[in-house]
Amino acid sequence: MLAVDFIEQKKQGKVHKPDDIKHFINQYVAGTIPDYQVAAWLMAVNFNGMATKEIAALTDAMLNSGERIDLSHISKFKVDKHSTGGVGDKVSLILAPLAKAAGCVVPMISGRGLGHSGGTLDKLESIPNFNVGLSKKEFTKLVTEKSLAMGSQTKKIVPADRKMYSLRDVTATVKYIPLSCGSILSKKIAEGINGLVLDVKTGSGAFMSEYGQSRKLAENLKAVGEQFGVKVKAVITDMNQPLGNAVGNWLEVLECIDVLKGEGPEDLIEVTLNLTAWMGVMSGIEPNFEKAKDLLRELLANGKAYEEFENMVINQDGDVDYIRNPEKYKKAQVIKPVLATESGYIKTIDTEKVGMVSLNLGGGRQVITDDIVPEVGLIVKKKIGDQVEKGDVLCEIHANSDSDFELAEKSYRDALKFSDKKVDRNPLIYESF
Amino acid sequence: MLAVDFIEQKKQGKVHKPDDIKHFINQYVAGTIPDYQVAAWLMAVNFNGMATKEIAALTDAMLNSGERIDLSHISKFKVDKHSTGGVGDKVSLILAPLAKAAGCVVPMISGRGLGHSGGTLDKLESIPNFNVGLSKKEFTKLVTEKSLAMGSQTKKIVPADRKMYSLRDVTATVKYIPLSCGSILSKKIAEGINGLVLDVKTGSGAFMSEYGQSRKLAENLKAVGEQFGVKVKAVITDMNQPLGNAVGNWLEVLECIDVLKGEGPEDLIEVTLNLTAWMGVMSGIEPNFEKAKDLLRELLANGKAYEEFENMVINQDGDVDYIRNPEKYKKAQVIKPVLATESGYIKTIDTEKVGMVSLNLGGGRQVITDDIVPEVGLIVKKKIGDQVEKGDVLCEIHANSDSDFELAEKSYRDALKFSDKKVDRNPLIYESF
Repeated sequence: MLAVDFIEQKKQGKVHKPDDIKHFINQYVAGTIPDYQVAAWLMAVNFNGMATKEIAALTDAMLNSGERIDLSHISKFKVDKHSTGGVGDKVSLILAPLAKAAGCVVPMISGRGLGHSGGTLDKLESIPNFNVGLSKKEFTKLVTEKSLAMGSQTKKIVPADRKMYSLRDVTATVKYIPLSCGSILSKKIAEGINGLVLDVKTGSGAFMSEYGQSRKLAENLKAVGEQFGVKVKAVITDMNQPLGNAVGNWLEVLECIDVLKGEGPEDLIEVTLNLTAWMGVMSGIEPNFEKAKDLLRELLANGKAYEEFENMVINQDGDVDYIRNPEKYKKAQVIKPVLATESGYIKTIDTEKVGMVSLNLGGGRQVITDDIVPEVGLIVKKKIGDQVEKGDVLCEIHANSDSDFELAEKSYRDALKFSDKKVDRNPLIYESF
Repeated sequence: MLAVDFIEQKKQGKVHKPDDIKHFINQYVAGTIPDYQVAAWLMAVNFNGMATKEIAALTDAMLNSGERIDLSHISKFKVDKHSTGGVGDKVSLILAPLAKAAGCVVPMISGRGLGHSGGTLDKLESIPNFNVGLSKKEFTKLVTEKSLAMGSQTKKIVPADRKMYSLRDVTATVKYIPLSCGSILSKKIAEGINGLVLDVKTGSGAFMSEYGQSRKLAENLKAVGEQFGVKVKAVITDMNQPLGNAVGNWLEVLECIDVLKGEGPEDLIEVTLNLTAWMGVMSGIEPNFEKAKDLLRELLANGKAYEEFENMVINQDGDVDYIRNPEKYKKAQVIKPVLATESGYIKTIDTEKVGMVSLNLGGGRQVITDDIVPEVGLIVKKKIGDQVEKGDVLCEIHANSDSDFELAEKSYRDALKFSDKKVDRNPLIYESF
């Protein structure tokens, strides 16, 4: 089928044959179908959608566009977690060593932050010398010998996704469920996993802000993932405010260390325990979900999870001294609070805006080539439903200049809405299936 | 506004600001906005449409992407006709000299055939040495001195259209009303005309096969054309079968000569008189439409129109000897009839298929670079509603080999549907406004 006829088919709302999808993607990766035809097709998909079997074919084509990691020599169940991304979402840094401490095998390949949303790799790299650029061989070795590796996608894994994601980014076709499914799943399945826990965020700081959209993404991910023989548990969690309090790469690492030491914010602990527990259940370590959570709580309390975190940092060449003595770390030059100018209850937090505050302080990227400043960011002190008196600290900003602080302060204030009346808090976890 | 935000805007079904459209098109022509972003936008437009003021801004941007023909020194009303294209649509070759004979000034820039649809330039070029490649200066001189020129779009006129049309062609966004409007009108307005008669075809051989779509295209063309101060008359005509009988470049020229000599098929005469009469009415030559038609009939009968046709051929370096003595012209090598194998009434003719028969004989183009064989084609002998006895001639095929004939015969038969019962004929002209 000619590319133009393939585009026409989707334009008319028809369902592609799996082989036609594979051919289209293969030709695209080979460079014989140009960007402009794929761009037109992406937009047609945006309007007319894709059936589950089409998404599966897309995922398969993307998966087969590059090399895969073969972990079949490891007989144990291999499980990973994927989050659709949010602000302050540092779960992976706790979850990975915690799951390992519980006995899971965790091959985790993560992404970088883009736009308002942070990325696990950037957080890991704020630990001096931490190496996320593992080769396929190094990654496989770590998973085999240590049951845990946190790496980045190599150029050879799912090249179709890299190529298509760049195109989606400039053609206003990023926020689209079937395309996101193909992108997410092809990368995860290429890791050689048996199970995947999905943290699908919903709310003002999520990839999909509307609940219905988030749920549809979760359903699609689960349905397609299972077609590839991967066990999938989807959990829809709240992203109407930052998760935990810290936003900013190194600040988030510090918060993770708190949690790993049995402290830290309740919401972050709860979401992490929930997601990690599903990994434990899937892996057959503890079939009862609540008991799995109890086991994990114990591993946080007794220091085993923290120990695995240190081991991971050491295994991946990170300078563990900064983990043990975080006060040595370079601090932002201006650390000042934002004070409340009115009393009331926090009604809403525009979480995307909060993500942008951190980005504009230097903690994120506008474009993928931007550098990251690890020490900047903010620590939220009042969250949705909290009562605020005039003069209370709303958040603490870590900036590298007074002008950066002032801009950040103004933007942070803009992100908040107050109410005179008591405000109900959102559930933290909406549903799991 | 960033290109990606512009695309997002249309994806969300919003209305662009005119200046944003102009900027987007200008940057595209300048090469700073790449094909893939325009492709995504074209597909979004395909789904979410454009308001009249957006189409006007698009037309304006395209118009201003290149040079225009200035005919302002000619004080008389300048009028052209545009057809959305069809099979056997040779109207321009009769209409242009006929309108001139009636006293109109006709600057006509035409296109080439592509796909099943023929093009005026190809028909003109089947006259040996006929020069359609007039420079802007030559074109202007002919219109000024002779009141008639038939030329082709130069590279400098509406370059945005050429660039965008090529992209639409490969991204399944050709058949879309706002984009077609911009394409058609920008080229016509660039000619320096005061009035435009639009022949919007509808039916199985038309650009838009559904009536509602054809009418919408006509309405949009009229509304936008008038925003540019051009008088527009839209006429919706039937294209459920070839217009006239001849399909194929030189065969069509011969049929035009017949009509110009007061003979030829009734349907072709009627459509031509109708469209040309509106040109006369617009130009103020005869305000009454029916009287204008009478005047034109007279000009066909008394040989004045034919005389202007010969003059045009001479003015544009065509070998008039072939017009005067068409028997000198090279004939196709195999000229044979297709005979009816059943009796009944012709119910439908798949006109696009008939166009493809001519194309496959060598009379048309699959891609814009294909060469044309002028002498091949076919002459329809039975049209919709005609009664057919077994053994009657359905059409006469002019092919250059037996194998070409056989393929054409088979395809032609496939294009026809018969009925046992009498069949109503379609109206020739549906409406004018």
